[in-house]
Amino acid sequence: MKKIDSAYCEALVKLLREKGLKTAAAESLTGGMVSELITSVSGASEILECGICSYSNRIKHQLLGVSENTLETFTEYSIQTAVEMAEGIRKLSGADIGVSTTGIAGPGGGTDEKPVGTVYIGISSKRGCTAQEFRFEGDRQSVRQQTAQKALSFIIEEAEKL
Amino acid sequence: MKKIDSAYCEALVKLLREKGLKTAAAESLTGGMVSELITSVSGASEILECGICSYSNRIKHQLLGVSENTLETFTEYSIQTAVEMAEGIRKLSGADIGVSTTGIAGPGGGTDEKPVGTVYIGISSKRGCTAQEFRFEGDRQSVRQQTAQKALSFIIEEAEKL
Repeated sequence: MKKIDSAYCEALVKLLREKGLKTAAAESLTGGMVSELITSVSGASEILECGICSYSNRIKHQLLGVSENTLETFTEYSIQTAVEMAEGIRKLSGADIGVSTTGIAGPGGGTDEKPVGTVYIGISSKRGCTAQEFRFEGDRQSVRQQTAQKALSFIIEEAEKL
Repeated sequence: MKKIDSAYCEALVKLLREKGLKTAAAESLTGGMVSELITSVSGASEILECGICSYSNRIKHQLLGVSENTLETFTEYSIQTAVEMAEGIRKLSGADIGVSTTGIAGPGGGTDEKPVGTVYIGISSKRGCTAQEFRFEGDRQSVRQQTAQKALSFIIEEAEKL
């Protein structure tokens, strides 16, 4: 299990500060890890607007605006939910870049179609909103860390295009 | 710097599950660390309603309902703000126990009156709402970890009384 490099978080904060961009995270699977990593860097307050750990579907709907239809039709573990979470946190916070994580960290909750380690990461900016599916190996904490690492890389990639 | 024991987080989740209680965290200083620690435990979804990392005062006011008067008069680093954050996250989430963290993790931001390491932790339940001031030693990450550890202990103490 590779620990996330603090230099990587520092590079993210530096990039967003230089570009005058703010980000915000809607985290289900990672439970606050993305915003925790960003705020581990001094000066993060200039670039992080807010983070929401939306473990319950009620919070996903009420705070982030994920539609009940999406949650019923596709479940919370889906591209569609990740997209709406990323879009929702960006609009709620007024940040330039919204990122989202949802998926099955395990050890329970996996199915044949969506086994443990199935993860969806969404990204939203004025350029649009998209999400990707991943299959990560490892235990609960490893899946969460790989997801957080990938979410940070999504923020950096999006910031570079803005 | 003492790492927070995963057994401690597991004990918290077990206690709240047994008592049928839910919690929610409003985190400024700890930036998501409290909810990240709770969700590191499998089954946390049963006891964690949501977490909000409210780094900006706008989010503290708009989402958590901390009054502008409180923020102007006492600043975000105060007993009053911690109390209103804990009360706000409990009402917003519908959880039984709301916890909040705010303070100065450093290295910058300290004053003579409130040096780096000055931390406020709030706790709210149907029993009422209160907050305490702490002075923690150490670097940014150490101050954040000591704060998260104390916040977890506040949740356990409150749960035992409910």
